[in-house]
Amino acid sequence: LLLYDNVWAPNPRRVRLFLAEKGIEVPRREVDLRNNEHRGDAFTAINALQRVPALELDDGTIITESIAICRYFEELHPEPALFGRGAKERALVEMWQRRIELGLFAPISHVFRHLHPAMAEAEGQQIPAWGEVQKGRALEFLDLFDRHLIGHRFAAGEAFSIADITAHVAIGFMRTARLPWPDHIAHVARWRDEIASRPGMAA
Amino acid sequence: LLLYDNVWAPNPRRVRLFLAEKGIEVPRREVDLRNNEHRGDAFTAINALQRVPALELDDGTIITESIAICRYFEELHPEPALFGRGAKERALVEMWQRRIELGLFAPISHVFRHLHPAMAEAEGQQIPAWGEVQKGRALEFLDLFDRHLIGHRFAAGEAFSIADITAHVAIGFMRTARLPWPDHIAHVARWRDEIASRPGMAA
Repeated sequence: LLLYDNVWAPNPRRVRLFLAEKGIEVPRREVDLRNNEHRGDAFTAINALQRVPALELDDGTIITESIAICRYFEELHPEPALFGRGAKERALVEMWQRRIELGLFAPISHVFRHLHPAMAEAEGQQIPAWGEVQKGRALEFLDLFDRHLIGHRFAAGEAFSIADITAHVAIGFMRTARLPWPDHIAHVARWRDEIASRPGMAA
Repeated sequence: LLLYDNVWAPNPRRVRLFLAEKGIEVPRREVDLRNNEHRGDAFTAINALQRVPALELDDGTIITESIAICRYFEELHPEPALFGRGAKERALVEMWQRRIELGLFAPISHVFRHLHPAMAEAEGQQIPAWGEVQKGRALEFLDLFDRHLIGHRFAAGEAFSIADITAHVAIGFMRTARLPWPDHIAHVARWRDEIASRPGMAA
């Protein structure tokens, strides 16, 4: 078992936090994104999409996509359940994980990729107008999330889940993406402080 | 149980095809997207994100996000398994479902939303440069998918899964998005014809 990882990128961080919450140790190999190791032949043979994270199983199978890797470990180590328990809770976790990924995590990465000068070369063609639209989307979603958290302790309800991990990583990436924290989202701030205080969240 | 549906939009179609493959009947209510019913107060109270599909459970809980709705039914009716069996296969299904959604389904919808004249009003601000970039991404992914299908009968391996449904709906949406079919992707064409011949795929 080997996890291809990167300490700076948000997606691999989701997997590290997930493993930390589960208490699972996995051997890791750092992929040097700054020197384009992920675009070299050796890593392209591992993941044709040239992205981290990737998990190599003992039989040589490669699992890519952060959530697919997390789900693999959830199946093998069901406790603590981070994808929910039972049909309804699992659906709600999937729903909030996806809402947060599509409504917050993705817009924040697009802001970073299309507006941050450091990404000009890696992105190839930055489209600032697209980055600006995504700023608005991220802030709109934070408002919706704030209203949702009035009645809920965690993103998907009363239990900590993968949805909280995705939201925590997205919010942690706002500073890098130069998105200022909106002062009025008090419930998100309350949730953020509780999440940040979990021992697993330092991974 | 009530499914808020729309017969033209690609996301609700994923859920209909999934239910047809499972042989599950669910009462449906058509939401009139052309007349902006999804933006009205009544539907906004059901899904604040103003999108279909949405599933209302008997206890009033609303599940949104196509894949979350599909997973809800997978939990209640595990056969035939459309999210895989066992840790490794489930991870591979999740991986391909996400790769196809992010690499093909999303780019094709962005091409439609940012380049099709019919979407000018609904999208608010079309960004043609973004649509053009997404054309390239969709075509690049089809090449990768074509190479993958050389060694695999279905998207995630030897069993039909939700990943095939997402790919089938994405590809069916190419014509609406005015994306011409690339002649050289023979393995995708072989896969496409097999999928289209399944009885459930007419839903």
